[in-house]
Amino acid sequence: MMELRILGCHSATPKPGEFPSAQALMTGNQWLLLDAGEGMQMQLRRYKVKFGRIKHIFITHLHGDHLYGLFGLLSTLRLLDRRTEVHLHGPEALKRLLDEVFRASQVEPTYPLHFHAVPADAPRQILDEKHFTVHSVPLKHRLPTTGYVIREKPKPRKLNPEAIARYPEIGIWAYHKLKAGEDFVRDDGSVIPNDELTLPPPPPRQYAYMTDTAYLPDIIPHIKGSDVLYHEATFAEADAALAAKTLHSTARQAATIARDAGVGKLIIGHFSSRYPDPRLLLDEARAVFPDTELAAEGKTLTF
Amino acid sequence: MMELRILGCHSATPKPGEFPSAQALMTGNQWLLLDAGEGMQMQLRRYKVKFGRIKHIFITHLHGDHLYGLFGLLSTLRLLDRRTEVHLHGPEALKRLLDEVFRASQVEPTYPLHFHAVPADAPRQILDEKHFTVHSVPLKHRLPTTGYVIREKPKPRKLNPEAIARYPEIGIWAYHKLKAGEDFVRDDGSVIPNDELTLPPPPPRQYAYMTDTAYLPDIIPHIKGSDVLYHEATFAEADAALAAKTLHSTARQAATIARDAGVGKLIIGHFSSRYPDPRLLLDEARAVFPDTELAAEGKTLTF
Repeated sequence: MMELRILGCHSATPKPGEFPSAQALMTGNQWLLLDAGEGMQMQLRRYKVKFGRIKHIFITHLHGDHLYGLFGLLSTLRLLDRRTEVHLHGPEALKRLLDEVFRASQVEPTYPLHFHAVPADAPRQILDEKHFTVHSVPLKHRLPTTGYVIREKPKPRKLNPEAIARYPEIGIWAYHKLKAGEDFVRDDGSVIPNDELTLPPPPPRQYAYMTDTAYLPDIIPHIKGSDVLYHEATFAEADAALAAKTLHSTARQAATIARDAGVGKLIIGHFSSRYPDPRLLLDEARAVFPDTELAAEGKTLTF
Repeated sequence: MMELRILGCHSATPKPGEFPSAQALMTGNQWLLLDAGEGMQMQLRRYKVKFGRIKHIFITHLHGDHLYGLFGLLSTLRLLDRRTEVHLHGPEALKRLLDEVFRASQVEPTYPLHFHAVPADAPRQILDEKHFTVHSVPLKHRLPTTGYVIREKPKPRKLNPEAIARYPEIGIWAYHKLKAGEDFVRDDGSVIPNDELTLPPPPPRQYAYMTDTAYLPDIIPHIKGSDVLYHEATFAEADAALAAKTLHSTARQAATIARDAGVGKLIIGHFSSRYPDPRLLLDEARAVFPDTELAAEGKTLTF
């Protein structure tokens, strides 16, 4: 199971209460942070994302509306006297910028801060944790940008207590192997098939975070199977030329990607402040992919 | 006349709605910005500080809670397609950091951005505008830090219409000299003294912004005559040892500076988040300097 909390979903030039891109995703008992727009640390507190559960932070690209909350967050972790490690994944150039930020304030983190450069040349697996993996997917924007796909690992099968109770020869020592999918083999060599004793686990969940990008069908094979896709939709169709020029997407383009990748649900965000009401964008997206929702600050999705 | 708007007044580790240091001061038809804590651009919009009236930004020091809103603000000015110049005053090291920030996002400001290094070795006049001056005052903190004193220039004397009406020989051509304080000299050489024809102008206003700093009586001669003094008061007296160690002030120390400098009013701020109710700090300050107020987000003072 994953839980997504949207902390901010507007593009640059924020108005009061319109925070720029920042999300937190709970999986494997960790909060993964996706982008860090200005004000992120306040939003983490507001929406009850415990700082102690944060271990990995992923930055898509170095435009300010995805980045300028990172410095304050890292600084606050220091003030909270954090000691456990933090892993920061993002464009190569972020390291040098952070060096300069730390140098300017003449402070060092109290915690081990590991930087992992994410190249934007090709998709790759960038993280392999116990319960999930993270892959980077190159996007098409005005500077090196990658989206991220978070994929749960398959869970063990569930024991079926009623079925097991019918076979007194199955001792507790066998449970681990049954969960791993093995058949039960009696001392005399006879076999009870696994699927008679266990139930399938819930399917592994997958979340894809794709921002900022021009319309880019290349990403489709990498996001296929996602239960939820967040895709930027900066512009309405009437401004498609502007989207092409600035390497952003329209809502209809985001929906086309969602449809062609066959995802479960599409969330659109990163709205330009030129649209007083983003429902225009929602309508345009739903015409192509009905199961679309608008991102909104504070929105929580469990899937 | 000056108008002060406090946009944020907490120290680091902000909670929701507790913005770090940022202020705007209206004088000479400009909004001067003092520090730029994270979220400043949102606060400027919330409290109706027009971006077009901002020309000078002053940064006291490079700790994040005074700085990390600057990058987003400069970036938003670019997105608003600003063309008029912006002057940034702050510690020397800020320039290199900003170079790196602009390099990382691969964008240049659309407007002329001028950087003026403010040395922290000695007090000096750093700005001389038509209607006001700004002086920097070195403070005592963990890295180079300066406070700022904004001083209105004396205004011209006001004509006294009733008095002037008694002398038909005073033509409109003489008004400019009268406002400048000159006596009126008749063609026959006889004199009407200026103070019979004009009224004194309102006294020039002065505002002093002193944060972050340990207790530092050296600043007193430089802030004397201030109508309003903002002085940091991070700690209560019970934590005086911590204040000394971290080079911050207690509320009582801030009040002692205010009393010894004979300012009109003291505003204390930069409260540590360890005090759930800053009225404790207010009480301690008022015991020394009764005309003390707590800073608060959104607070406006006209003086």
